[in-house]
Amino acid sequence: MQILERRDTDGIAHLHMNAPERLNALSDEMLAALQDQIDALAEDRETRVVVISGAGKAFCAGHDLKQMQAGRQAEDGGRAYFADLFTRCASVMSGLTRLPQPVIAQAHGIATAAGCQLVASCDMAVAAEGTRFGVNGVNIGLFCSTPMVALTRNIHRKKAFEMLTTGRFLSAEEAEAAGLVNKVVPHDQLEDATRALAETVAAKLTAAVKIGKSTFYEQITMDLDAAYAHAGQVMVENMLWRDTNEGISAFLEKRPPDWQKG
Amino acid sequence: MQILERRDTDGIAHLHMNAPERLNALSDEMLAALQDQIDALAEDRETRVVVISGAGKAFCAGHDLKQMQAGRQAEDGGRAYFADLFTRCASVMSGLTRLPQPVIAQAHGIATAAGCQLVASCDMAVAAEGTRFGVNGVNIGLFCSTPMVALTRNIHRKKAFEMLTTGRFLSAEEAEAAGLVNKVVPHDQLEDATRALAETVAAKLTAAVKIGKSTFYEQITMDLDAAYAHAGQVMVENMLWRDTNEGISAFLEKRPPDWQKG
Amino acid sequence: MQILERRDTDGIAHLHMNAPERLNALSDEMLAALQDQIDALAEDRETRVVVISGAGKAFCAGHDLKQMQAGRQAEDGGRAYFADLFTRCASVMSGLTRLPQPVIAQAHGIATAAGCQLVASCDMAVAAEGTRFGVNGVNIGLFCSTPMVALTRNIHRKKAFEMLTTGRFLSAEEAEAAGLVNKVVPHDQLEDATRALAETVAAKLTAAVKIGKSTFYEQITMDLDAAYAHAGQVMVENMLWRDTNEGISAFLEKRPPDWQKG
Repeated sequence: MQILERRDTDGIAHLHMNAPERLNALSDEMLAALQDQIDALAEDRETRVVVISGAGKAFCAGHDLKQMQAGRQAEDGGRAYFADLFTRCASVMSGLTRLPQPVIAQAHGIATAAGCQLVASCDMAVAAEGTRFGVNGVNIGLFCSTPMVALTRNIHRKKAFEMLTTGRFLSAEEAEAAGLVNKVVPHDQLEDATRALAETVAAKLTAAVKIGKSTFYEQITMDLDAAYAHAGQVMVENMLWRDTNEGISAFLEKRPPDWQKG
Repeated sequence: MQILERRDTDGIAHLHMNAPERLNALSDEMLAALQDQIDALAEDRETRVVVISGAGKAFCAGHDLKQMQAGRQAEDGGRAYFADLFTRCASVMSGLTRLPQPVIAQAHGIATAAGCQLVASCDMAVAAEGTRFGVNGVNIGLFCSTPMVALTRNIHRKKAFEMLTTGRFLSAEEAEAAGLVNKVVPHDQLEDATRALAETVAAKLTAAVKIGKSTFYEQITMDLDAAYAHAGQVMVENMLWRDTNEGISAFLEKRPPDWQKG
Repeated sequence: MQILERRDTDGIAHLHMNAPERLNALSDEMLAALQDQIDALAEDRETRVVVISGAGKAFCAGHDLKQMQAGRQAEDGGRAYFADLFTRCASVMSGLTRLPQPVIAQAHGIATAAGCQLVASCDMAVAAEGTRFGVNGVNIGLFCSTPMVALTRNIHRKKAFEMLTTGRFLSAEEAEAAGLVNKVVPHDQLEDATRALAETVAAKLTAAVKIGKSTFYEQITMDLDAAYAHAGQVMVENMLWRDTNEGISAFLEKRPPDWQKG
């Protein structure tokens, strides 16, 4: 049994966190396994969409606190270990943003602290009814500063501030209204609904989705003129692809496109 | 019959896209006509508010795909034409932001791809019930990279990402909840509701609205201190105008202001 | 009777604007009193949370227009006074953001112009049903440029633009949906609900909330990598505190933490 299972079907890589007894905590082992998959997916030309889910009763409960406490045994009280840990965690989280493929969180049960950060770091998220989202590290004296980076890029400031300083959970419905989640479905439809979303994206022209995702995050922090200059160049490249020519022609001729999907 | 009709009444310039048989596509001709009006409005001291609407069953369905495909006949396969096209389109879109007058989109039917970008690029938008908003170029292999620039500055990330990679349409009500639209009204009230909004803004002190709009977009990407330094200087200038003195005095004396509206 | 009353209980500093006959206008005197408290609170190690409320029928109706008009009597027509006024006002508003303690607005009645800015500048806000929020200076010819700085960092662009150029008020419920307010309660529960929120935050580890608040605003405008680098360092420091060690240990041992709260 692996800590992170991967199943590939029809261009969709499904990463399944499998440490249910620890609520899929982002232990050193889990982070390493996620990073390995991210590194592999970054070079993977076959995979079009990535789904991340968790086994057991929680999507992910954040960092592995027992392991972190054990890190204090080092001579420096854990300083070097913690610095390395948060660097590795940020690498996984920003790595999801940098992947060429869209990444969908399939959330259920609870998604707390770095587990909520994982949802926020995915490009899209589907949640089961009853899922609770929180950045509640403040309750134990550890402010969710790194989860905050992802959270504040998803939802409005006052809502994020409240979650971070009170530890209050959002219901799945609140998370959807706030912008943290795309869709909420009954628990027994979670896998199918996430799969359907993944298949919808996987059916598009892969190269277009890929260039679109990278441009999404590149342009979002630019000023307006720089963003248009960059996105305009991307549009030109996109237009010049054989498959885009075919896609537009097919649309104008009211027939399905014959894509090479190269 | 012109491709872009302009009617001026009471300080409101109403630009009406009039190519219903092509769903008011942003063809070379439509972009040129819009740019001409933007250039004229930039120097126009009489016009206080601009409204953009479309004839026929759609507000605007985006770029003119037939014309774009014809551009491929050039020796370079269209590269120079496409680069020029997206530059001209960005000039129109960012030109709306730079106009001294507030611009209101009056949307109905469909607003897709660059048509959705047009709605997002206006300062405000009113939509008829039943209007559908999408950035669905991905369906034909052309990711809506330039529409994304405007869209991601209007709504939260996960919702924008979903629209862009799935091609899913937002209903008018979803668009309002997401932040893309200010108000949704029954179709037979669309023109009146948009007009009422335009008249409300047109009744304000023109110079105040003008300095306010430019400052809105200038300060929004600044850091907090720079934004306050800039906005504070604007407030000082605004306070020193004769008409602002009169406006405040009139308010304190509970009488209507006697504005020159210079 | 002071223009700004301060009551301290259980680590919560409650600042009560007390100029009800002027709708708690941000006069020179009120701004000075707020700045004095901000300066004191910046050095105050005992206070964990700040609440701001207003006496009478309004939370705050913005600047003191009579006083501003009187400023015109100076030789320069008020230029120097207005420049100083907006600098002092910005200092108060950004000072709330820079305070080590979370600040909660307890809003009722009306919160307009700089009064709406005050709500937007607080980290969180609770509002009574019936409260109306507006940046309606445009109605008297004075565009709410400085309130806009805070407002546009709280809610989406099109909604903010509409409020600023039409003067339209948001109801408390609209303000909550837009992101300007965290919670709306019946008027007779406003003080208790705000108090409960303040007590929830005050019960957390003070140092964690403090480092979290400053990091919140520092990282929010950084690019993703810089934000993670900064937040990661903050997490390391946070982990190395005695009380955080105790907080995590207590959580793992299912007992209440024994915090020094230093």
